[in-house]
Amino acid sequence: MRLRNKPWAEERLNEFPQYVIREPEQRKGKWNEVFGNNNPLYIEVGTGKGRFITEMAKAHPNVNFLGIELHKSVIISAMDLLIEVDLPNVKLLNVNANDLRNFFNKGEVSRVYLNFSDPWPKTRHEKRRLTYKTFLSTYEDILPDKGEIHFKTDNQGLFEYSLISMSQYGMQFKFISLDLHNSEYEGNIMTEYEEKFSQKGNRIYRMEASFT
Amino acid sequence: MRLRNKPWAEERLNEFPQYVIREPEQRKGKWNEVFGNNNPLYIEVGTGKGRFITEMAKAHPNVNFLGIELHKSVIISAMDLLIEVDLPNVKLLNVNANDLRNFFNKGEVSRVYLNFSDPWPKTRHEKRRLTYKTFLSTYEDILPDKGEIHFKTDNQGLFEYSLISMSQYGMQFKFISLDLHNSEYEGNIMTEYEEKFSQKGNRIYRMEASFT
Ligand SMILES: C[S@@+](CC[C@H](N)C(=O)[O-])C[C@H]1O[C@@H](n2cnc3c(N)ncnc32)[C@H](O)[C@@H]1O
Ligand SMILES: C[S@@+](CC[C@H](N)C(=O)[O-])C[C@H]1O[C@@H](n2cnc3c(N)ncnc32)[C@H](O)[C@@H]1O
Repeated sequence: MRLRNKPWAEERLNEFPQYVIREPEQRKGKWNEVFGNNNPLYIEVGTGKGRFITEMAKAHPNVNFLGIELHKSVIISAMDLLIEVDLPNVKLLNVNANDLRNFFNKGEVSRVYLNFSDPWPKTRHEKRRLTYKTFLSTYEDILPDKGEIHFKTDNQGLFEYSLISMSQYGMQFKFISLDLHNSEYEGNIMTEYEEKFSQKGNRIYRMEASFT
Repeated sequence: MRLRNKPWAEERLNEFPQYVIREPEQRKGKWNEVFGNNNPLYIEVGTGKGRFITEMAKAHPNVNFLGIELHKSVIISAMDLLIEVDLPNVKLLNVNANDLRNFFNKGEVSRVYLNFSDPWPKTRHEKRRLTYKTFLSTYEDILPDKGEIHFKTDNQGLFEYSLISMSQYGMQFKFISLDLHNSEYEGNIMTEYEEKFSQKGNRIYRMEASFT
């Protein structure tokens, strides 16, 4: 069993407040100050061990990136990666996606990435899926009008569900690949889960959807 | 080369006006008279050799079915099938999907089926795809409010395109399967193309979408 709130993890996170932002409520409306510039801010919700957000930050130096991860025991690995690469445009937040409205004003986040989100396959757990309507509403409230969500997963059920949930929320799709690794899409940056599941032979699904 | 307007085909179609409806403009607003009842009318656009529409008619005796097929040389096979099974609730129309407004009033068609529509993979042929916006607009004009399109195909590119095109038209998805033959979906009725391509090992994609 994973211990969620290991005190050593809490302590270690506190040692690197330049990477794992403390008291994020205080930053609401002021993320440009945290990064020291007015570049667009892209967040990844459920960032895991942080490879995607770090590689994205390397590839796009004129965008600021923030990885959101609930579990301290996981975000520690992402922090270690950030310490290693030491980039100015990527930071982490140890918070729950439920609470994003507490940390960002409307339009303060320019894009939301969801990668290999937990599938919660049982119908009674639908509300926990990061593409359930309450989460979509949360993302809508921190994105600009017509803001975009970019989502990929190997989980067929979650992808089917997300297409339905987003369309019923009134979102529109701009890009869909039902087999990303055998498509013409260029510049894909792999996540930890993507590497693991594509090596097993799973197809990777990807979409870009915008609010309307 | 297929000869599109073989005179023998025209002649043979004319021999069975109870199956292949002649002068369909005259039936606009009066399809209940053609079928002799007020049951809902479901159409399949691009019906090919007619197996789907015939099996659907067997399985759903309280629904009227109309198979729309452009090519005489193809619809002949569907007609032969209808002669064989002799069901009261299935008929054919030898017309172009472009012209559906000429044959049906708003709401006169209760559902549209598209099965294994020609993919037209080149971007410059986008307008020919049966899920291009001009076709969606045509279906909308003959369906009731919130009318539904049920679509299946093995063609990944066409399915991706159709999800995007329909969502950008403002449609909402109610059902999506990215691997129909390995899903829990019950009561699937196979088309000729579905049998052929699933035997080759291709995945079958299926969706239900409604206008809003
Ligand atoms: C399956 S992992 C995927 C990690 C990474 N995105 C990847 O593709 O390798 C999902 C991650 O989302 C995090 N997560 C799940 N629900 C969350 C929530 N409500 N808020 C923040 N993070 C969450 C989990 O702790 C986990 O680390
Ligand atoms: C690939 S076949 C599929 C046939 C059948 N639905 C199946 O699944 O086996 C597509 C059919 O659509 C017909 N079709 C294509 N465009 C059409 C149009 N604009 N109006 C009517 N039929 C059309 C073609 O003639 C062809 O028979």
